[in-house]
Amino acid sequence: MANDKKLVKAITARDEDFAQWYTDVVLKADLVDYSSVKGCMILKPAGYAIWENIMHELDARFKATGVENVALPLFIPESLLQKEKDHVEGFAPEVAWVTMGGNEQLPERLCVRPTSETLFCELFRDSVESYRDLPKLYNQWCSVVRWEKTTRPFLRTTEFWWQEGHTVHATAEEARERTEMMLNVYADFCRDVLAIPVIKGQKTDKEKFAGAEATYTIEALMHDGKALQSGTSHYFGDGFARAFGVQFSDKDNQLRYVHQTSWGLSTRIIGALIMVHGDDSGLVLPPHIAPTQVMVMPIAQHKPGVLEKAAEIRDALKAAGLRTKLDDSDKNPGWKFSEQEMRGIPLRVEIGPKDIEAGQCVLVRRDTREKTVVALDKAAETAAALLETIQADMLARAEAHLAAHFYDALNYDEFKDAAENKPGFIRAMWCGDLACELKIKEDTTCTSRCMPFEQEKISDVCVCCGKPAKKLVYWGKAY
Amino acid sequence: MANDKKLVKAITARDEDFAQWYTDVVLKADLVDYSSVKGCMILKPAGYAIWENIMHELDARFKATGVENVALPLFIPESLLQKEKDHVEGFAPEVAWVTMGGNEQLPERLCVRPTSETLFCELFRDSVESYRDLPKLYNQWCSVVRWEKTTRPFLRTTEFWWQEGHTVHATAEEARERTEMMLNVYADFCRDVLAIPVIKGQKTDKEKFAGAEATYTIEALMHDGKALQSGTSHYFGDGFARAFGVQFSDKDNQLRYVHQTSWGLSTRIIGALIMVHGDDSGLVLPPHIAPTQVMVMPIAQHKPGVLEKAAEIRDALKAAGLRTKLDDSDKNPGWKFSEQEMRGIPLRVEIGPKDIEAGQCVLVRRDTREKTVVALDKAAETAAALLETIQADMLARAEAHLAAHFYDALNYDEFKDAAENKPGFIRAMWCGDLACELKIKEDTTCTSRCMPFEQEKISDVCVCCGKPAKKLVYWGKAY
Repeated sequence: MANDKKLVKAITARDEDFAQWYTDVVLKADLVDYSSVKGCMILKPAGYAIWENIMHELDARFKATGVENVALPLFIPESLLQKEKDHVEGFAPEVAWVTMGGNEQLPERLCVRPTSETLFCELFRDSVESYRDLPKLYNQWCSVVRWEKTTRPFLRTTEFWWQEGHTVHATAEEARERTEMMLNVYADFCRDVLAIPVIKGQKTDKEKFAGAEATYTIEALMHDGKALQSGTSHYFGDGFARAFGVQFSDKDNQLRYVHQTSWGLSTRIIGALIMVHGDDSGLVLPPHIAPTQVMVMPIAQHKPGVLEKAAEIRDALKAAGLRTKLDDSDKNPGWKFSEQEMRGIPLRVEIGPKDIEAGQCVLVRRDTREKTVVALDKAAETAAALLETIQADMLARAEAHLAAHFYDALNYDEFKDAAENKPGFIRAMWCGDLACELKIKEDTTCTSRCMPFEQEKISDVCVCCGKPAKKLVYWGKAY
Repeated sequence: MANDKKLVKAITARDEDFAQWYTDVVLKADLVDYSSVKGCMILKPAGYAIWENIMHELDARFKATGVENVALPLFIPESLLQKEKDHVEGFAPEVAWVTMGGNEQLPERLCVRPTSETLFCELFRDSVESYRDLPKLYNQWCSVVRWEKTTRPFLRTTEFWWQEGHTVHATAEEARERTEMMLNVYADFCRDVLAIPVIKGQKTDKEKFAGAEATYTIEALMHDGKALQSGTSHYFGDGFARAFGVQFSDKDNQLRYVHQTSWGLSTRIIGALIMVHGDDSGLVLPPHIAPTQVMVMPIAQHKPGVLEKAAEIRDALKAAGLRTKLDDSDKNPGWKFSEQEMRGIPLRVEIGPKDIEAGQCVLVRRDTREKTVVALDKAAETAAALLETIQADMLARAEAHLAAHFYDALNYDEFKDAAENKPGFIRAMWCGDLACELKIKEDTTCTSRCMPFEQEKISDVCVCCGKPAKKLVYWGKAY
């Protein structure tokens, strides 16, 4: 079988070659396939099912804050993209252009959306008249296209899937609150569902979104000590509103510009899931996001009664609300185990003739391989509790890993040493000048990941130039 | 307020100008907005929420038959599109072409997918090796683009949203079964959820999908007697498999080509919802698909206790599992009623000071305007039952409308008379020749909608040429 063959060869060890390990896991856990379209990936059932669960979880959280879903066109006319100056400068170099429709040359080029601020502005302009129409809290689930030169599954692809939220408000204050609220939605989701702790902070001007007044970010730390920007939330002020003429008549009958936000999280986060939790046997999925939480594995399934008992366990677990499957294929148990491990299914239930005789089964955790022998009538209850334990333990391990990878740099030598020898976040003070940010990147390949919300003053001077420091910045190598 | 203003002017009467009535409903029920991208629509919250419910319902039905979701690229390289001859002939004239990525001319043009058979074939070729990998039952939810000259919201737009299922099987028989199974899923969904009865049948060669061996269709009848193709299911035989080299080694170790299907249903079905059930006050949504099933309307809401009681009712209805909202805006009740009616919310609950005194509230059906006075403690129970009654009544009315719009034509004069004077389906025998199909279209603008599964022989000869008849065909004018 196709999948079996791919599993025959073990994957690269994680600490031997992290990049190759990542590619191996992505392909052998059957998450994606490459396509004949350069830089575009195919989300296969195992990969899409994770994204489906992410959408489901986030969508409910968005709706709980009053957000409504919409769907806007895939195309943006060139003239529309050009209305906001910073925005077009940021995105024009990396868009795909449609120049022909059917057999005819188009009078105006259309770009395939790289993001949809411009289209949303047009919609807001047409649907907002009075303060009573505000706020508008919209979101869409879609794919976007950015023409990338080098690509890697999930982390950087020409087309990727995401949600983009766009809101307009009567006041700057309310828009700022929304920006922060959505960043918190992302951070809570990452922690509680993906078992990924994140750093919250603000991007420097260099790193912020094209057209934004401020960009906020959540940054996660991968196993190899590199950072991954995992979600962003932008405050636009009234910049786009002025460029697009989005006005409303306020309570005092004055015409005012709306204040705007946008926020997005993409399939990139699946890359984080892999690189935070995976191990030498493959993917390890946190139970709260795993499409299949428990795989029931009959041992010696040809023996009378084994398959029946395995199916009974599956049914009991399903009835308890656990996403459970039974692997009754004719592969041998070793194959089945390695397949289940490669795919990151959090819990395995082994049941064979001897277990049946003893009225028990064996629960095996994916994350620690720990085994629990349990009476058959306690299987569902124990499995449910174990899944919660696994979830909590995975978060605790990721938190410990994060906490162990902060390094304070009080001068430039310490910074360079950390950049070279200590993978993780480097905490260092910054004067606020672009020149220092560029020099640091040039010298060390580290970028400013964020100015964390929790500011401290670990030194009075900029780690790079020695001038008075303005902000504590977390720096790091990043995906 | 923007929306109020739009409601001030009543909509066109349905039987006065059906096309204008349709446009009025679509805009005033706030389902869509036009965009600056020619031929592309925006699905606004009220429109998208219907599509969301459609996706939710269909997705569960697909998964119950073993289908898995995937996501394939948005682009198809020109050389890939050209691999299957009939397919490219059908679609190439109506695709959008990406010719530039960033600032560079692409070495090969990419079309924006009009449908994804070619990409799925490539995926199947790469992931199927043995009979044990079969069947593959894949589906994706996405938008596709077909360059249309004239467009109308939902019915025909350059970009539209849909699902496209693609499956490959070891045998022709199994593939044929799947084609039929999915057509039945569509038909059952239309009947049970959308309250739309459909005719099931096979398309003639002229009307079938480009590259298909056979296309099956469900056809619905709109209020004006025109037909709307509402979902299709295609059997490809091994045509695509041969063009793309999708082979598997069978149980006897022989290499064989897979047998393939695809099936799709799109946002077009929302056009059917509008045109089957709508009336002079706007949209009428069947309760099973309505995003909001019940709107609670406080009367004289400034009076003490009214809003509190209205909120209590809303909470009770929500607790009973009904999708309920409370309209506590400061519009007057007349406005609120017409807005709720325009948006097609199936049930309204009126509650004012006198009702509270009498310990009752008033339930008003959207479809019949019938009022039911009910004790407050019976409101949820009665509303739940009423919603089911509305659903059943809407289906019964649509079925009666369909049954009343069949006309048998035994000769060409009868056919032309029916085409001119009797909107609906014309049942007439056909010799099977393309020439007659073309002549009928030329003479009457009627197209063959389908060769219904339930065949009868109402005459021995073709209604057009008088030669021996092969099939009973349902003909009609269509959207």
